[in-house]
Amino acid sequence: MDKNSAIGVFDSGFGGLTAVRELIKLLPGEDIIYFGDTGRLPYGSKSRETIKKYALQDSRFLLSMGVKYIIVACGTASAVAADTKEIMPVPMTGVVEPTAAAAAKATKNGKIGVIATAATVASHAYLKSVNEISASVQVIEQACPLFVPMVEEGCVDRGDIVVKTMVERYLSALKRTGVDTVILGCTHYPLLTDAIRDYMGKNVTLINSGEQAAIYAKSELERLELLNGKKSGGSTDFYLSDDTEKFGALAEYYIGCHIDGRVERIDIEKY
Amino acid sequence: MDKNSAIGVFDSGFGGLTAVRELIKLLPGEDIIYFGDTGRLPYGSKSRETIKKYALQDSRFLLSMGVKYIIVACGTASAVAADTKEIMPVPMTGVVEPTAAAAAKATKNGKIGVIATAATVASHAYLKSVNEISASVQVIEQACPLFVPMVEEGCVDRGDIVVKTMVERYLSALKRTGVDTVILGCTHYPLLTDAIRDYMGKNVTLINSGEQAAIYAKSELERLELLNGKKSGGSTDFYLSDDTEKFGALAEYYIGCHIDGRVERIDIEKY
Repeated sequence: MDKNSAIGVFDSGFGGLTAVRELIKLLPGEDIIYFGDTGRLPYGSKSRETIKKYALQDSRFLLSMGVKYIIVACGTASAVAADTKEIMPVPMTGVVEPTAAAAAKATKNGKIGVIATAATVASHAYLKSVNEISASVQVIEQACPLFVPMVEEGCVDRGDIVVKTMVERYLSALKRTGVDTVILGCTHYPLLTDAIRDYMGKNVTLINSGEQAAIYAKSELERLELLNGKKSGGSTDFYLSDDTEKFGALAEYYIGCHIDGRVERIDIEKY
Repeated sequence: MDKNSAIGVFDSGFGGLTAVRELIKLLPGEDIIYFGDTGRLPYGSKSRETIKKYALQDSRFLLSMGVKYIIVACGTASAVAADTKEIMPVPMTGVVEPTAAAAAKATKNGKIGVIATAATVASHAYLKSVNEISASVQVIEQACPLFVPMVEEGCVDRGDIVVKTMVERYLSALKRTGVDTVILGCTHYPLLTDAIRDYMGKNVTLINSGEQAAIYAKSELERLELLNGKKSGGSTDFYLSDDTEKFGALAEYYIGCHIDGRVERIDIEKY
């Protein structure tokens, strides 16, 4: 593997950009190639088999771009297609294991909540991963299917009655269990952090899965001696399976700042 | 064309089942083959080019099943891929023209509202179609991107604060214009009829696009002498591009009654 190659990141669409934001902060000198499967999003409502097929195509596209490392910055693809890792010729990190490890470390009362898409919850990937680290930790899972479309609609304001109602509707049972740590198991959810914190209270630790994946990828790249050694000047290029027209504004919304770099459309069904 | 062949119906996923419901009512003796692109849904947030490609693949699948007629029971595909009709070897009906004609007939004050997906509104298909019938009618369009995920989540109850708030948020500007007719330009929206009627008032006529497409298809099949002549006993078979496991319960929710018939998964990317 060439140290000077880019780090590949893929997601079903836009949510993975919250992981890119963390990666740019941690490794400003690294080149990043992002693929968002905007032509087939979302993944969270789809079946295991379909998500696996898509994750494999997404990985093959990134490999065709010569990446040295792949980050699956999509909770659903990480949860459902974890075994893709075994057949990849480059190291690969999903969001599940690093996030589960961070949550297991953070909890004091041994009760962790997981909020994620329907497909992720059905896979029980976070539950299994936390219990591999500590079998005594109790994990309570909750699917929140409207959160992704809400975030994609910009419906994220902590004062918005729709946001407050849906947060309460999805999280009330979880709150009653007394969890002290909640995994945001989908990379869209960090945009709802304020509303979720308002409802769950300040004493509940929220674990951002995109951030944990980026932290873990950095430590792995160090361990494998795959970092390019540059301290700044990394580029970020974006590839999408749908139209690129509105991508700039959307990327700023998810990443939180203006991003330069190539934005190109590709045909993912060919990979 | 063989009169005894089935009528083909396709949609991005489930919304088109509201048109199937009407078709079964109108033509209980006809066989129906339904394709729902559940592996790539939704269409409404995607680009023109991607939707066209998908609509063509969906049509090719139905043709491979030997259908005598195709109904595009998806507002977005009808609006964006209308020209697919020209290259089809069988007659094809979208939802736009029949619905626009019904709305133009229904309005008394010459003001029609259109609510639909982002892609449909961007195409201005309903506006153009109404103005071809009557240039003096004023058409006001409003995209309602959260309505499809809300319907898919079962979030449709007229008393639900999220439903009421989103209906008011999307429709308040439309209501102020004084429209007396509103086109439900997406086949998911009939499930929100109660909430929309509560907000718009009883004097506003709601036009159901799936119903209008079914009525128009019936008249075309009569005109072309393509009806099979049976009064009952028609079958309805379903094909999906994702998992079929939960389809039965979902189909009942959209169709409003129990449906027998084959439910099978196919690989739409091959068409």
